[in-house]
Parts: sequence; structure tokens; C-alpha cells
Amino acid sequence: MTETSRRLVLAHRPSGMVDDTVIRVDTVPVPEPGAGEAVVAVEYLSIDPTIRTWMDDAPGYLPPIEIDAVIRSGAIGTVVASSSDTYAVGDTVFGMLGWQDHAVIGTEGSMAQVVPEGIDPTAALSVFGTTGMTAYFGLLDVGQPKAGDTVVVSGAAGATGSVVGQIAKAKGAGRVIGLAGTDEKCAWLIDELGFDGAVNYKTEKVAARLRELCPDGIDVYFDNVGGEILDICLSQLAMKARVVCCGAISAYNDDRSTAYGLKNYFTLITKRARMEGFLILDYLDRFPEAQGEMLGWVLEGKVKHAVHIVEGLENAPDALNLLFTGGNTGKVIVKL
Amino acid sequence: MTETSRRLVLAHRPSGMVDDTVIRVDTVPVPEPGAGEAVVAVEYLSIDPTIRTWMDDAPGYLPPIEIDAVIRSGAIGTVVASSSDTYAVGDTVFGMLGWQDHAVIGTEGSMAQVVPEGIDPTAALSVFGTTGMTAYFGLLDVGQPKAGDTVVVSGAAGATGSVVGQIAKAKGAGRVIGLAGTDEKCAWLIDELGFDGAVNYKTEKVAARLRELCPDGIDVYFDNVGGEILDICLSQLAMKARVVCCGAISAYNDDRSTAYGLKNYFTLITKRARMEGFLILDYLDRFPEAQGEMLGWVLEGKVKHAVHIVEGLENAPDALNLLFTGGNTGKVIVKL
Repeated sequence: MTETSRRLVLAHRPSGMVDDTVIRVDTVPVPEPGAGEAVVAVEYLSIDPTIRTWMDDAPGYLPPIEIDAVIRSGAIGTVVASSSDTYAVGDTVFGMLGWQDHAVIGTEGSMAQVVPEGIDPTAALSVFGTTGMTAYFGLLDVGQPKAGDTVVVSGAAGATGSVVGQIAKAKGAGRVIGLAGTDEKCAWLIDELGFDGAVNYKTEKVAARLRELCPDGIDVYFDNVGGEILDICLSQLAMKARVVCCGAISAYNDDRSTAYGLKNYFTLITKRARMEGFLILDYLDRFPEAQGEMLGWVLEGKVKHAVHIVEGLENAPDALNLLFTGGNTGKVIVKL
Repeated sequence: MTETSRRLVLAHRPSGMVDDTVIRVDTVPVPEPGAGEAVVAVEYLSIDPTIRTWMDDAPGYLPPIEIDAVIRSGAIGTVVASSSDTYAVGDTVFGMLGWQDHAVIGTEGSMAQVVPEGIDPTAALSVFGTTGMTAYFGLLDVGQPKAGDTVVVSGAAGATGSVVGQIAKAKGAGRVIGLAGTDEKCAWLIDELGFDGAVNYKTEKVAARLRELCPDGIDVYFDNVGGEILDICLSQLAMKARVVCCGAISAYNDDRSTAYGLKNYFTLITKRARMEGFLILDYLDRFPEAQGEMLGWVLEGKVKHAVHIVEGLENAPDALNLLFTGGNTGKVIVKL
């Protein structure tokens, strides 16, 4: 009997959260590698908010996932068959392997990289992966924090936000404040990660609390959420502030007509401030320098990372939804 | 009989446009200069949208105008009495002289400067004044246009916008498109000022027209208006675009609850774009370099400027309202 392999494909484009109608499980034979190709048994999926944006039929920084195509996703796996000079059986690789049991790499544009031995796969997907790199380059390259700055980060208990705050402290920020959605997350930010303060945006008055915690205004705001929280932070910028636009998770499930509109953009003028977006795709060639510095912080205990593991490929859609309900602390990873 | 002098003071804070209830005319004796002071007969008022923002009791880059205080305004006049070593009778001076027949300068923080001979007062208030300097530093320092770029400017028939477009052409922009509110203004931008295209935002479909005129997207958007037009331009940014936030005239008469909210800020991420505000106050020490380059362009005919003169101090409030109804082409100046 031929071994089978599952593939989670896009059956219908979602409106709002991803439910059973959006994803279909196809069962196919385990693929065989063609010339120059290798087959990977996928082991860990990186669950990132941006996956939700790829499901919409809207222009973005990558093409939308096509209907009936496997859900695009970063993942780690082990090479189980190879006709490639680049990948040997037994290699651990990272790449856009997708939500499936087996992926073919070595095809044009597949961009899978061998993960060095000694790096835990969950660390490779989080602090040393695109999540950690997003935190690193977004904060340092776009946000350009200076010693003593007040840095605010939203989605602070998430995979990227939690690392942003710790890098800010490691780089000498005067005050690092995180926004998160439960008291437990807020306590974790302060007690475990060394944040100077935290705001529970679901139960506290965000504007008033931020004014208390950031009496001199916000020098760097690292935005993972967009919407009303971004608007509040815009109104509290310090002179020459930088707003790093990393994500807008609050808006990914909205259609445009109901999306929250920013009203406080005028503060960019009065405070001579800058709001700038970036994508980690533009920094791939600079990953080594960042990974080296990150490794140092991890070894010194300055950057800790949390992982939220969900078991089973079939639960990947629920794992994605966790990001939007705030059900996770740290990086969400699906273990196959 | 003592000579009298009129002062237009803030009687009540406006909601919306400035009307008769907002401004009161006080008649006072012509002031005498104290030690170190001089008295200026005010001759030309610079009418700028920002004056409207100073009338609100809201935090800004300068304190609100106080109730019963003279309306703050840039202006040019001639020194008529002096006990100052800096200012001689007969000097032409520029400063924040206010909406009044006579102003006292040489007091702390009054910052009046002598205008060199040979500069026409209306040019000193427009192309060589804060208006022209706003265009120069906003476009070049914040917007950083590159040769071949597509540059879009709103409020393009206004004092600043009209100069922005011409500087962009002088610096080698590939395509300069202006937004204005009448067909006559649009024709003026193209026929007289050398813009490559213009959109009448009151009668045309702005998003569709901009897509036609800027098929490769917008590299630099110089925003004088804020609101919905800013939001449309955000949705049409090119990769690595720069949005220069200069003003938001569409919002100055609104209260916050009715203000238009920006929904397309997510494009800053997908296009790795930057949105940045500035104030010309930060560039005062660099005016000479800019004025020198501007003089060259004016002499070469590359930068033309239009002036919309309103006669009579008592008409200053109506002159200010022209900016919001779009009743002007070029710089609005009140001649006393």
C-alpha cells in the first residue's frame, strides 16, 4: 500500500476567522523527488498572522494563496528522500513548506535552507527565525531606539512583541511597556521578560494607562496590531518618535468597510514623527549578523522565548485562530 | 488726538469655519516702543492654514492663541519707531507680527528679522518665506525624491503645493501630478507651472484618475490635506514610497469625532513605505541655503509663484476661510 500524506488546502476564502469551510484536508500519495528535488517530512509549522492575509484575494507583498493550493507557511522538517545535491537525507531544513505532511523542495523558488545542527527546531522557528528577525530588524533598523528611550510594543506577549521588548532592554531603552490581553500575560512580561510595565488592553483604559506609564511620551512604538491601539499610541508620541508598522492583526479579519480608521495621524506633524512599514523578506541577507547577536543575548539570558505548541497538522487552522483570539503566549508552533 | 490702531483678537474659539463671533476688532492707541523695542506698521499678513489650528484649545506645536489675544500670524511691516539697536526706522521686517495695524518687536521671543532690500514683500512671504521653505524642506529633506520618481501633491494650487510640484520638476522627478479643486486650477498647474497632470478632486474619481496618471504607483506623496485623499494615496504607494505629512487642511475645521479615519495604513507595510511629518520651525537655520537655490530657480523661471491678495486687515478672517473653501490660487496675503 502506498503511504499517504495530508495537505491542508484553501477551499474557500475566509471572511473573518478561519473555520471548517475554509480549509479542506486532501489525502495524496507521499511525493517522490524529481531530478534536483528532495522530499521533506514536515515536523513543525510556524504559525504567523501574515498567513491569514495570504488567504484573502487582495494585493499584498506575496500573491494570495490560490484556491485548492496548500496553505503557505514557514515550517521545519527532515529530508526523507533526495535527488538533490543540496539536500541530503537526514538534513533538517527550514522553508515555506506549507501545511502538509510532506513537501517537495529544490524546485525553483522553494528557498529551503539547512538548519545547522545544535539549534532546537522551535528556537529556529522563533527567536532565530523570521519571528526573531522581524523583532530585531523592525526595532533596530526601522525604530532606531536610542539609550533611554521609551519603547511601547503591542502584541507584546506574542512571538515578535515579546522579543522586541527584550531587545529594547538589551539595547538600553529607558522604559519598555507592553500591551497584552490578559493579566497573566502582563505579569509574564514584567516578571519573566523584564518589561518595565504592561497594560491589559482588554480591561484597562489604554490611553490613560499609557499616559501614566510613559509620562514623556512614546519614542518608539512597535505596532503589531493596528487599529485603535495604534491610533492611541499616535496621540501620545514624543518628539521625533518612530512608529514601526510590523502588523495590523486587529484588522486582518475585517473587511475594509468596517476597519478602524486612524484619526491621530496629524500628530506625525506636530511631533515631527515617522511611521514606517517593513517586511522581513527584505532582510534575508542580513540574518546572519542578527542571529549572531541574538545568540549572544539568548546565552546571556537577556532574550527568552516562549513557545505555544499545538499538536497535529489537522489543528493548524485552530492554531492560526489563536493569534487572533489572543490564546497564545509566545510563538505558536504546530507539531506534526 | 492719539492715533489709534486695530487689533483682531480671538473672542471665542471657533467650531468649524471662522465667523464674526470668533474675531473681535479692538481699537487701541498706537503702541510706543519700550527700551530695546521697536514698533512696526504691519503691511502684509501671511495667511496660512496653521493659523486655524492655533485657534483651537488643543495641544499643538505652538500654544493655542489665548482668548482676547491678537491672532498669531506671520507678517511683514515697516519699523516706524525704535528704541532698539537691532531695528532702525524704515527697516522692513518679517515676524510673527499678528493680525493688527501695529506690532511691538524686540521683546523676548518676538523673532522679527530684517528683510533684505530688493526682495518684494509678497515674494518674501511666499516663495522665499515659510511657504516656499516648507515646500523645499518638506519635499527634499523628508520626501527625498529621486530622478524619475512619480510625485503627487495635494492642495497643489495652494501656496506650498504649487511650489512643491515645481521643485520636484526642477529636481528631475519623472512625473508630477497635482490635486486641486477647480478645472481652472488644474489647467494652471499644467499650463503655467509645468505639472505633468492634475486631478480635480471635486469632480473626478480621484482613485481611478490617480491610477491612470501614476501607473507605477506614487513614490512621493506630499500631503497638504489629510483625510480621504491621503487615504487614497496611501493605497497607491509604490515600493519604498515616502508620504510627507505637511498639513491636513481637510480636518482643521472638524472635531475629532467626525474626522475621516485612515484605513489604508497597512500599505505602509506591504510597500515598505514611510509617512513622516515635519514642521518648518525646525529648519530655520537652514533657510539661507534653500533661499539661495530657490532664487536660482525663480530667476531661471523654473519656480513661479502666484499671490492672492485680499485688501484690508478687517478681511483677514475671510482670507483665512478662503484656504478652506479653496477660493485661492497661490499664496493668500492680506494687504493692510
